[in-house]
Amino acid sequence: MAFKSLPANPVVAVAGATGAVGREMLLVLEQLEFPAAEVRALASERSAGKTVPFKPAPGGELTVKAMTPESFEGVDIALFAAGADVSIELREAVVAAGAVMIDNSSAFRMESGVPLVVPEVNPDDAFEHQGVIANPNCSTIQMVAALAPLNKIAPIKRVVVSTYQAASGAGAAAMDELYNQSRDFLDDKPLAVEHFAHQIAFNCIPHIDVFMDDAYTKEEWKMVVETKKIMHAPALELAVNCVRVPVLRCHAEMINVEFASELSVADARAALEAAPGIVVMDDPAAKSYPMPGLLAGSDPVYVGRLRQDTSVPHGLAFWNVADQIRKGAALNAVQIAQLLLSR
Amino acid sequence: MAFKSLPANPVVAVAGATGAVGREMLLVLEQLEFPAAEVRALASERSAGKTVPFKPAPGGELTVKAMTPESFEGVDIALFAAGADVSIELREAVVAAGAVMIDNSSAFRMESGVPLVVPEVNPDDAFEHQGVIANPNCSTIQMVAALAPLNKIAPIKRVVVSTYQAASGAGAAAMDELYNQSRDFLDDKPLAVEHFAHQIAFNCIPHIDVFMDDAYTKEEWKMVVETKKIMHAPALELAVNCVRVPVLRCHAEMINVEFASELSVADARAALEAAPGIVVMDDPAAKSYPMPGLLAGSDPVYVGRLRQDTSVPHGLAFWNVADQIRKGAALNAVQIAQLLLSR
Repeated sequence: MAFKSLPANPVVAVAGATGAVGREMLLVLEQLEFPAAEVRALASERSAGKTVPFKPAPGGELTVKAMTPESFEGVDIALFAAGADVSIELREAVVAAGAVMIDNSSAFRMESGVPLVVPEVNPDDAFEHQGVIANPNCSTIQMVAALAPLNKIAPIKRVVVSTYQAASGAGAAAMDELYNQSRDFLDDKPLAVEHFAHQIAFNCIPHIDVFMDDAYTKEEWKMVVETKKIMHAPALELAVNCVRVPVLRCHAEMINVEFASELSVADARAALEAAPGIVVMDDPAAKSYPMPGLLAGSDPVYVGRLRQDTSVPHGLAFWNVADQIRKGAALNAVQIAQLLLSR
Repeated sequence: MAFKSLPANPVVAVAGATGAVGREMLLVLEQLEFPAAEVRALASERSAGKTVPFKPAPGGELTVKAMTPESFEGVDIALFAAGADVSIELREAVVAAGAVMIDNSSAFRMESGVPLVVPEVNPDDAFEHQGVIANPNCSTIQMVAALAPLNKIAPIKRVVVSTYQAASGAGAAAMDELYNQSRDFLDDKPLAVEHFAHQIAFNCIPHIDVFMDDAYTKEEWKMVVETKKIMHAPALELAVNCVRVPVLRCHAEMINVEFASELSVADARAALEAAPGIVVMDDPAAKSYPMPGLLAGSDPVYVGRLRQDTSVPHGLAFWNVADQIRKGAALNAVQIAQLLLSR
């Protein structure tokens, strides 16, 4: 299917509007003054009739409607944040209605013909869609956003990354679990464990998503295959280690990169400073570096602790932080929609 | 100075007996039934007269005495956990008294003639001392304990490590700060920041100890130089990234190792399982892996998430956890003392 151009003022549906990412999608549409002719808040039958905040709407809120295949008639852009099962179930109806589905789930990311897009990194891919564009995994987005500007000036051979991922990646109820467990821990009460495999309060869990046959987690696998797809770099080598930490909503990543040719810290810094969506926050003398507990609600991918990695030829190390719900999910999805409108 | 053999029942002094590590040293002496003829609890003038728990003592406690150069007369083994300045100030008096100083501070670790010892890794080094033996940095100890058994069967070329370090590394008051900040955060009150550079509750701080000229922290530098010294491996390449996380007292580390020759996961696992002081906790299907929030007070270095790192020839990745106050400090120091008694 060839790329169909969208109206200047599209009808937008948010599927999963009551979840952490869906609510943030509405907030981002509002904050970016997205030129929607209409915004529909859709969710499961259970949530129908609830209201969700959305400023341009009369009264500052939208009434949530139960999502059915018919909900997408007249819709131009459908932002999906309702989980993989719902995306799979409704894909045909959305595409048949002539809408572009921008899907935050992992359902279609590795499907050939489905672009996987970070607008700052591979914008052209978005226009090759056949009705569905996938939003990458949160931890992938913030890594490729920082790797891509460096890869342009010195090709990357290998990446070793260890993540420090927030509770928000597991949803709003998981964030509540971190809150509640922390309070119960301090009050010396028994902790209720539901959304994570183990206690997350005052703990680190080296296990995100399910385990695969090779002893890697699916989260680690996602970061490998998604990064290669987004960066058009099938030969890029990646060693990925994912860990959940007791932080509410920003992910952090410690990244060691091996380049094929020399890249100085100064040149890397200049490339990152010039890159869209990146903010370099890196002044050790002033104790300035990005921190996940202090950057919730922000849009950029922050980079700090930039230094040479002399343990390997042409090595560089850095640390990044981004809000998992914003750049890692809702913001990136809305930016894909903006990108589609821009051409 | 040649090695002087110790009496079977030595007189032991604990310098800094009221701090987190000093108290734990007394507890470890008690738990390991260390055959001391006498144990002296020493601390600053400020703490003199306080009592500290120690079971073999009458009444189950020792009265703390103010530490002076004369405190070490008749002492055979002086366990120091009072900070680098105190160790430097009293070194001469301790050695002149004929005692062996086992020092937990960073003051003498890289000094030639001062063995830096992890008993499971380089026991022979301990017997080359000239009055002072240094206890390595906590994050170094748990890493070399896991690397050494692997290095015996396949030489290690390069290590990339990212740490997840607990509040305890900054002392007992820093642990209290994590507690208090967490409560204030949950109660929506302003947070008091004193022992860390920034808020630690619900945050990660990529900054431990001071920054050096090359943009690395001193903690990162310590892990590089101490590992090379302990493992007698000056050519070993290390890329080290240290991060403080909101966990109370166990450190965790994610480690990617590149070997000079093939090493299967099965062989690595067998070597680790056979290694003293190591417990392999690695059953993904049962969601079993070591976690820092759940292993406080334990002695071993736990290893899990063992898997191949296919991003490099002969690569392996794993995760380790150890109690920073025990194996990372007090336990390792007392084990050095045990080692000295054993020959």
